[in-house]
Amino acid sequence: MNQSPIKLNVDLGKRSYPIFIGRDLLGKAEYLAPYIRSSRVMVVSNETVAPLYLEKTLAGLTDFQVETVILPDGEQYKNLEVLNQVFDGLLRTHCDRRTTLIALGGGVVGDMTGFAAACYQRGVPFIQIPTTLLAQVDSSVGGKTGVNHALGKNMIGAFHQPQVVLCDTDTLNTLEDRQLSAGLAEVVKYGLIRDLAFFDWLEQNVDALLSRDPDALAYAIERSCQNKADVVAEDELEGGVRALLNLGHTFGHSIETGLGYGQCLHGEAVAIGMYLAADLSQRLGWISASVVHRIETLLEKLHLPVRIPEGLDSQTMLDLMKVDKKVLDGQVRLVLQKSIAQAVLTTDYDADLLHKTLATERRPLF
Amino acid sequence: MNQSPIKLNVDLGKRSYPIFIGRDLLGKAEYLAPYIRSSRVMVVSNETVAPLYLEKTLAGLTDFQVETVILPDGEQYKNLEVLNQVFDGLLRTHCDRRTTLIALGGGVVGDMTGFAAACYQRGVPFIQIPTTLLAQVDSSVGGKTGVNHALGKNMIGAFHQPQVVLCDTDTLNTLEDRQLSAGLAEVVKYGLIRDLAFFDWLEQNVDALLSRDPDALAYAIERSCQNKADVVAEDELEGGVRALLNLGHTFGHSIETGLGYGQCLHGEAVAIGMYLAADLSQRLGWISASVVHRIETLLEKLHLPVRIPEGLDSQTMLDLMKVDKKVLDGQVRLVLQKSIAQAVLTTDYDADLLHKTLATERRPLF
Repeated sequence: MNQSPIKLNVDLGKRSYPIFIGRDLLGKAEYLAPYIRSSRVMVVSNETVAPLYLEKTLAGLTDFQVETVILPDGEQYKNLEVLNQVFDGLLRTHCDRRTTLIALGGGVVGDMTGFAAACYQRGVPFIQIPTTLLAQVDSSVGGKTGVNHALGKNMIGAFHQPQVVLCDTDTLNTLEDRQLSAGLAEVVKYGLIRDLAFFDWLEQNVDALLSRDPDALAYAIERSCQNKADVVAEDELEGGVRALLNLGHTFGHSIETGLGYGQCLHGEAVAIGMYLAADLSQRLGWISASVVHRIETLLEKLHLPVRIPEGLDSQTMLDLMKVDKKVLDGQVRLVLQKSIAQAVLTTDYDADLLHKTLATERRPLF
Repeated sequence: MNQSPIKLNVDLGKRSYPIFIGRDLLGKAEYLAPYIRSSRVMVVSNETVAPLYLEKTLAGLTDFQVETVILPDGEQYKNLEVLNQVFDGLLRTHCDRRTTLIALGGGVVGDMTGFAAACYQRGVPFIQIPTTLLAQVDSSVGGKTGVNHALGKNMIGAFHQPQVVLCDTDTLNTLEDRQLSAGLAEVVKYGLIRDLAFFDWLEQNVDALLSRDPDALAYAIERSCQNKADVVAEDELEGGVRALLNLGHTFGHSIETGLGYGQCLHGEAVAIGMYLAADLSQRLGWISASVVHRIETLLEKLHLPVRIPEGLDSQTMLDLMKVDKKVLDGQVRLVLQKSIAQAVLTTDYDADLLHKTLATERRPLF
């Protein structure tokens, strides 16, 4: 027997939308049809996810004229050139302004589909069906869409909110272990930024999460989405508090871009970035060595890397950190820790201490 | 002695902005600096306009750190690939979220710069300095930005309003005659849509306009911008009345795309499109042959083409018209004439009559 899914709301006035979290949601028309105000639908997926879940998804769309576009899989394809394949598909099939785009896949598919929806004919609606843990807890919620540029991650994009987000936790059963852990990095992030009780819970539920206990995963997703929805409702366009959601991301993006997109998973880079943020916070005297140790231990138990990968030098990372959307008037603003569950956005750090953090031990990614 | 420029206001609440129209505005800091809330500026121009007006423009920006990007000139370069050159320039020079982009050029430069501003780091401010008549009377006002796709014109874009629009009528002195006439097509458009007195005035001032009488041009620009500002203030995102500004554009886009971008100027294609809209309106019995003749005569006196160019067959045009942002649920919606100064958006036309309009005489473009 099926339980009803959890329903959260992202409260953004006229742009508000629900997030459904639960088992066996894919292919159920009742979670999609009410959010599609058009006769036509374009499902965008990738070559890994489509063979697993496209058919099931289409079963919930029998009332609509449906087209599909299948993209290559990987962060290295999240660029303007591959984005154009979505526009090719839309134009070749004469999709008009009342077409709804549906993203079926992980963060890359979601970010690209959302951006395509933001730009196609200057804006059409879209729906997120995230199939990775990372996309379910983070990238599918909040309306950030976009693509990478060779010189910087997520540098080209738009704010464009979805009509609904559908997190079918059954899709996590086919996720590789490495992808599951990468998603858990973003889950840990919410604890570190603003939710001490959740951080405690995560420490106590490492085994349940890694063994994919459905209840543990559903709870982790719900609590993550609730935290994100609260922050986004307060600051949709990242004028203030939303920037805290970038904990670990300035370091992380420099690792992703520095190694070349697709080498290190986004969640892995964020895990390393959160460790580096903790390391720098300790050097600043804001948190103790034991707090850093607690953060490091949780990340490592979740099978996440916590040291800068070999082959990446400090200067390269520093240069890439200067290409960050939080940079203002040349100043790199970092999200650091005042304690567990208290993150701050700051330029109030000593450049020498940052250099020391960047000069710490290198390790192979695996 | 300089007169004060004309100042119009585009009334869009928090996104309101002024349009300045007058002589010798370029290089005057007082019309730019108050609208730049950043220390950094990126001027985007093209290889035709930059040698003429870049230096003068920079003279008004001495208080800022300025970068420049020079694009190739022509509609055929208005695509995602060339757009990426703007992002390259922004990222290579570490332009952050507080950078203001300035479009210095015609409609292509304005549309691309505005779209780059809409997408760079999910949105930075921009300023329009249109240097062609077409851009001054139409494309620089109203916040439509974007690029073409091989399968359809302006299919990828965003609504993104500028901070200020600066129309220096002196820049029109270097405009080729063909470009001047193309701009006048969009001027005639406002008369045909909603402004009978203006249409009458245009009929009486053809010679003054073609001889570039500064007062006549300034008046034509002011009246055009005022008409556009009124419509845009009423319907920013084109849910209704704004679609009327597309008079001649559905036919026109199919000509531009059908011939290949850059063959026929946008304004020329719109002139042909306005004639075709009048022809179809007459076939529908909505306007008389004498009204069509009056429209045709004015366009021809302004040295604009009024017949479909040779080599473009009806079916190709019809297929391309189906790729139009006004198409809804497969229906091509056209802007037609109920009388001079009364345009309507409609699907209430006989397909056979449209075929007859598309099958009319072909002429060489020149």
